[in-house]
Amino acid sequence: MAIGTLVLLRHGESVWNAQNLFTGWVDVALSDKGVAEASRGGVLLREAGILPDVVHTSLQRRAITTANLALDAADRLWIPVKRDWRLNERHYGALQGKNKKQTLEEFGEEQFMLWRRSYDTPPPPIDPDDEYSQAGDPRYAHIGDAAPRTECLKDVVARLIPYWEEAIVPDLRAGRTVLVAAHGNSLRALVKHLDGISDEDIAGLNIPTGIPLRYDLDDALKPTNPGGQYLDPAAADAAISAVANQGR
Amino acid sequence: MAIGTLVLLRHGESVWNAQNLFTGWVDVALSDKGVAEASRGGVLLREAGILPDVVHTSLQRRAITTANLALDAADRLWIPVKRDWRLNERHYGALQGKNKKQTLEEFGEEQFMLWRRSYDTPPPPIDPDDEYSQAGDPRYAHIGDAAPRTECLKDVVARLIPYWEEAIVPDLRAGRTVLVAAHGNSLRALVKHLDGISDEDIAGLNIPTGIPLRYDLDDALKPTNPGGQYLDPAAADAAISAVANQGR
Repeated sequence: MAIGTLVLLRHGESVWNAQNLFTGWVDVALSDKGVAEASRGGVLLREAGILPDVVHTSLQRRAITTANLALDAADRLWIPVKRDWRLNERHYGALQGKNKKQTLEEFGEEQFMLWRRSYDTPPPPIDPDDEYSQAGDPRYAHIGDAAPRTECLKDVVARLIPYWEEAIVPDLRAGRTVLVAAHGNSLRALVKHLDGISDEDIAGLNIPTGIPLRYDLDDALKPTNPGGQYLDPAAADAAISAVANQGR
Repeated sequence: MAIGTLVLLRHGESVWNAQNLFTGWVDVALSDKGVAEASRGGVLLREAGILPDVVHTSLQRRAITTANLALDAADRLWIPVKRDWRLNERHYGALQGKNKKQTLEEFGEEQFMLWRRSYDTPPPPIDPDDEYSQAGDPRYAHIGDAAPRTECLKDVVARLIPYWEEAIVPDLRAGRTVLVAAHGNSLRALVKHLDGISDEDIAGLNIPTGIPLRYDLDDALKPTNPGGQYLDPAAADAAISAVANQGR
């Protein structure tokens, strides 16, 4: 059986994206703009005739709501749903809840970019008593000590790829069209793996919100369309530039 | 391990409920009132401290959206999701899409009540070419000839109880709090089974929309609170009277 189609969808703008705050594992909702982006993502899927057979989401409401709104717009709300913490956004450690611009000013360009874009330098871990810690959140009770208190992108790759292999690949090998509704950094981790991007080059890759990114894969799960195809390429180009300027 | 708590939730008002049309398997959306009912159902869950560990829904958007809105309001959007056609509303056969009041006038009180409330008399089957038939709907492709073209409540019991046994009971036996977001007649079928209601008496049982109904079960899966407990008993009483007068 041919390998199914993979579609990646980064959640629409959240209320904290709009306020320029580091979010990570804090469970914020979509903004009104984000709601509209998510629905439009579903319209793009429907118009392209790419109809998901199964959806994988993180445990965070901004990705779950994005999936729900997009699937409603694509008339695929009824497909099977799989959720896993390993699709969560990168945990932003002690930076969670902090303003990006203030953090840049307080710590300077070099440290700021190291935390934001270095592959293997996580921010300081968050204090379990911090108001933005997820210690005690029932949705992570089952993972116990595996729950991170901070992560760099390398950590995200390390927890995401096992989920890719165990849960997503079997759906693709069954010939299904698979929608993965997740986050900027969990999707960067997956794209890094799919396209074989180096630890250095991944720093320059941004994924826009709300625009489905289609990958066609060969039997070895390598993209036959490296880099994938955005279903609205012009909007993706414009949004990628905007993401790169976040925190400025 | 103790048996988990079972919570039944009938979807909020749909756009066709509001227009007094027979809906059955036609996949209509919630009305604005239904959206508000669904969210309030989640608030009732949260206020009662009844936090679902897993949700089961039909394949129909009015139940799925109700579950999503209620779980969002209860901050449980992240729990595992299971969907199955056997939780669908009763298929209303050739009556799907028809006005209830006009049907009452056209066929008379006796025939109307027979189709609506008799246990074992289905309406005439729907023509596969009818605009309100589900023939060709991709969400039912996997069930093939098992897809009904009409159903009486007895038929709903026959397809629902195996799902109860195979999918819901194991979650309850694992001690989970289980939310079942479904429909007037699929929930009547389940309540008939749980409470041991006779084929005759089930005709008089109505389940209001949007008000969670809690069942506590013993080891034999029999309710220790027969009839269950609505989380808003006064609203439930008022709504039950209103449902009984539908079509008048």
